[in-house]
Amino acid sequence: MTQKTYTLTVSCADHSGLIAAVTGCISETGGNILNLAQHTAVDIGMFFCRVSFTGEKDFSPEAFTAAFGELAGRFAMEWRFYDDADKKKVALLVSKTSHCLYELLLKHADEELDCDIPVIISNHPDLAHIATSFHIPFFQVDPKKGKEAYERDLQSILEKYGIDLVVLARYMQVMSPEFCKAWDGKIINIHHGFLPAFKGAKPYHQAWQKGVKIIGATGHFATEDLDQGPIIFQDVIRVADTCSVDEFIRMGKDVERRVLVEAVTRYLKHSIFLYQGRTFVIE
Amino acid sequence: MTQKTYTLTVSCADHSGLIAAVTGCISETGGNILNLAQHTAVDIGMFFCRVSFTGEKDFSPEAFTAAFGELAGRFAMEWRFYDDADKKKVALLVSKTSHCLYELLLKHADEELDCDIPVIISNHPDLAHIATSFHIPFFQVDPKKGKEAYERDLQSILEKYGIDLVVLARYMQVMSPEFCKAWDGKIINIHHGFLPAFKGAKPYHQAWQKGVKIIGATGHFATEDLDQGPIIFQDVIRVADTCSVDEFIRMGKDVERRVLVEAVTRYLKHSIFLYQGRTFVIE
Amino acid sequence: MTQKTYTLTVSCADHSGLIAAVTGCISETGGNILNLAQHTAVDIGMFFCRVSFTGEKDFSPEAFTAAFGELAGRFAMEWRFYDDADKKKVALLVSKTSHCLYELLLKHADEELDCDIPVIISNHPDLAHIATSFHIPFFQVDPKKGKEAYERDLQSILEKYGIDLVVLARYMQVMSPEFCKAWDGKIINIHHGFLPAFKGAKPYHQAWQKGVKIIGATGHFATEDLDQGPIIFQDVIRVADTCSVDEFIRMGKDVERRVLVEAVTRYLKHSIFLYQGRTFVIE
Amino acid sequence: MTQKTYTLTVSCADHSGLIAAVTGCISETGGNILNLAQHTAVDIGMFFCRVSFTGEKDFSPEAFTAAFGELAGRFAMEWRFYDDADKKKVALLVSKTSHCLYELLLKHADEELDCDIPVIISNHPDLAHIATSFHIPFFQVDPKKGKEAYERDLQSILEKYGIDLVVLARYMQVMSPEFCKAWDGKIINIHHGFLPAFKGAKPYHQAWQKGVKIIGATGHFATEDLDQGPIIFQDVIRVADTCSVDEFIRMGKDVERRVLVEAVTRYLKHSIFLYQGRTFVIE
Repeated sequence: MTQKTYTLTVSCADHSGLIAAVTGCISETGGNILNLAQHTAVDIGMFFCRVSFTGEKDFSPEAFTAAFGELAGRFAMEWRFYDDADKKKVALLVSKTSHCLYELLLKHADEELDCDIPVIISNHPDLAHIATSFHIPFFQVDPKKGKEAYERDLQSILEKYGIDLVVLARYMQVMSPEFCKAWDGKIINIHHGFLPAFKGAKPYHQAWQKGVKIIGATGHFATEDLDQGPIIFQDVIRVADTCSVDEFIRMGKDVERRVLVEAVTRYLKHSIFLYQGRTFVIE
Repeated sequence: MTQKTYTLTVSCADHSGLIAAVTGCISETGGNILNLAQHTAVDIGMFFCRVSFTGEKDFSPEAFTAAFGELAGRFAMEWRFYDDADKKKVALLVSKTSHCLYELLLKHADEELDCDIPVIISNHPDLAHIATSFHIPFFQVDPKKGKEAYERDLQSILEKYGIDLVVLARYMQVMSPEFCKAWDGKIINIHHGFLPAFKGAKPYHQAWQKGVKIIGATGHFATEDLDQGPIIFQDVIRVADTCSVDEFIRMGKDVERRVLVEAVTRYLKHSIFLYQGRTFVIE
Repeated sequence: MTQKTYTLTVSCADHSGLIAAVTGCISETGGNILNLAQHTAVDIGMFFCRVSFTGEKDFSPEAFTAAFGELAGRFAMEWRFYDDADKKKVALLVSKTSHCLYELLLKHADEELDCDIPVIISNHPDLAHIATSFHIPFFQVDPKKGKEAYERDLQSILEKYGIDLVVLARYMQVMSPEFCKAWDGKIINIHHGFLPAFKGAKPYHQAWQKGVKIIGATGHFATEDLDQGPIIFQDVIRVADTCSVDEFIRMGKDVERRVLVEAVTRYLKHSIFLYQGRTFVIE
Repeated sequence: MTQKTYTLTVSCADHSGLIAAVTGCISETGGNILNLAQHTAVDIGMFFCRVSFTGEKDFSPEAFTAAFGELAGRFAMEWRFYDDADKKKVALLVSKTSHCLYELLLKHADEELDCDIPVIISNHPDLAHIATSFHIPFFQVDPKKGKEAYERDLQSILEKYGIDLVVLARYMQVMSPEFCKAWDGKIINIHHGFLPAFKGAKPYHQAWQKGVKIIGATGHFATEDLDQGPIIFQDVIRVADTCSVDEFIRMGKDVERRVLVEAVTRYLKHSIFLYQGRTFVIE
């Protein structure tokens, strides 16, 4: 029998003795640390920590939760405790372009995305065949029936499949503030521009007009401020001034799909801390 | 005796037959092409071309200029013709940080910057010793005496040394619209942010607040719109969320100095075409 | 009616007047140059040039071929002339890993690979379903029946489909010297190491043992010297010393698929010049 | 009064409970952990850990050393304990090229290299003026007087200045096996090639001949196997096939200086673990 593994994330104002306290509590309750990553953000005096550990024979999640809860109270910690065997359920939302969808499905098939993908949802029928070939249910929703009614449809599908995380894989619809709030910190979007520059529509056209020499893509949490939510991952590619807008679009696709997978991966590993409107990704 | 080499730059609306016309004219007047780079920007229907060539025995710059002028008229070309032996005179303007100044001086000493650097100007005395050790005259100017008077001082030094290009090597003073206009297309600035994001003051602080995962620097022509002039070169570096603002500043220095040298190099090679508010750098 | 476009590649010992001669011949026979890239390799005194052009009304490929043949003879040029409408027929050879195969098929579906892919061949049945879902005939060959007999099978499939280029997309079989010679300059292999380091088997294991900080992949022409043929494209990725061999393998897959597509793209664009055992890729 | 900070490095065969044991010992002796980085190399079952911590009022280095020594014995740990106030003394050895020397001196002047540089040694007089302008003693040694006598001279200078680390900053002399052994793990060399490819002389020429598309530099410990010692840091730069060997050399200089500084920085931070002929750099 393989041992169970757990992940603990902790954030709080910086104090002396935090690491010893955290590792001590794990050790005393029968946990064996596999990996510990921690960071003290000196600019704001915050401590962030992520620990993965196995439970020895006599480890009990309930006992650990109780013991750590006591410790957390003392230091005013925000903390989360995950059983790594509980796979997140991820819904993919797409429109007409397939490169991000294929990337997520192929990485998942290669066991590089540690989650379940129980459903694919789109506002267009175009990519249904891809869902079919990967044996995943496909639903079409219709924004034209009105924001409210359409988002109610969306919500009911997400609930039906017990979705934990919504991934907008080049989904060309803006979510309502209500929807963003309901799913706060649980919607990851890929923006095809290097945020905070070039938010909104046609970022590659904007970038070409401006004559930038490097273009990029940004994986971020969707919030009600369009393309302004906390950034999770970014990557870039150098472009020559001999590139047309169409070449920007084509070259950008490889960056987009890579960035989206990296952003989702960090979410699934519980590596992302949200604090004061930005992320701290501790790997 | 080494043969003389020349550089010709041409831009115009795209037509069929342009390359053959340009190369034909060079060939017929006794020029021998060493290198030709050209680009047709399909998004705006513009043709850009840069040719370097040697003059055979009977080549005469005057005859070439006359012949090419006739051709240029026919196609409404904008064109420039340079004798590569005429070195540009470049003034370096600095404040208190030395990394960009050192980089330019060391690259120049290694014969990687094909120009003369006859003068260094600063609004502070701090870097005078570096000018001295490289045997270059150093002048201190005083912005506190009033923009107009101070820029008149600046202008008179630039004129005295017959300056062709002004390089702002982390010079912490904003130039007046009048000065920018007088030196239009002849001032290169290094901005320590990845433009168009993070213009203005403290770009590394802005970037840290936003939580971007990649920071950069931008070499651009200074115009009256602060940090909004046409971009010449950019580069970036990945940062971890475990970096402090101070580490951003430290890591950024290497990017800044590299970007500034690359931008100046492209200017000296006549590789930069300015059109509709952006550059087309054809290498 | 869209105009026909052509590509001309030329290489020869460097002389003065080459570019004017080439562009002049195209112009005189009714061609209109779209793009010209050229390079003089000063270390070996060789000239390489690639021109794409359209034919005006009275342009005749036969007349151009005759005229250029005369010019080529004068300068001892090696040259090739392509009608861009003639698509190359490319065979994909695979074994059990799918990431390179998927990448080529998806890029082809997105019209980013300008060729036909009429057949997929494998020494294993595992990836047949992918061929099926992209509607491409799939053949299984059996190396166990003896090199000679097996390569005869391979050859007959390649002939049947009129194949111009063989792409080894993580095909885990070494080709015989005879096969390599028969397909000289027409087999592109992806090696999962940064050549010339780490040739042969298990390059990621070799790299890990050596403790390199950057790993890479190499797209190259297959020759009888295993993994030593001329390099077409390479790319790399930084690895941390906290990576295991398995993580090298996983991270490497993204580099491999990208490098293979870039190498094949350069071949299809006629950008690769082979000279003295190395390539000169002129873009 | 600023608190004293310490660094502890530990390596041993992997066991359960190591992190809790290490952090517990620090905590119990009055240390307060600032930063902990650890890695278990699953391929070889080894644990590496680096901790920096401050000492609270009652912390005593002697008491800590005694307590940790007991723990280390139990787990067969290899460990080192450093007082961060003890600056390493670094000697720079150079020949005729200045870019690596300048880089080290400028980074040191900017307080980015946490060490003392009490002496510069060369087999040529060319760079003496740089030493002078940075107020550092400069010694010329003469390899022509015989390896043994010359290395004795070298050794006596190094001893005179109490040198801890020797940095070969493009020093063009091969050290004897005896010298390498005497300074095992204490000589850092910059090789201007991407090792293990292109060891030995003229690596850029080798790279050009081979037609690689990316060139690099390697910072490594010098051992008696020329250019084969454990790698500390590497970086690369993409090159076009339009580059000459001279351009490789010029472009490579920026990579070399950057890589050398990064390698030395990691040494000074005690981030490098040597095990079975390779490094594990844990940051």
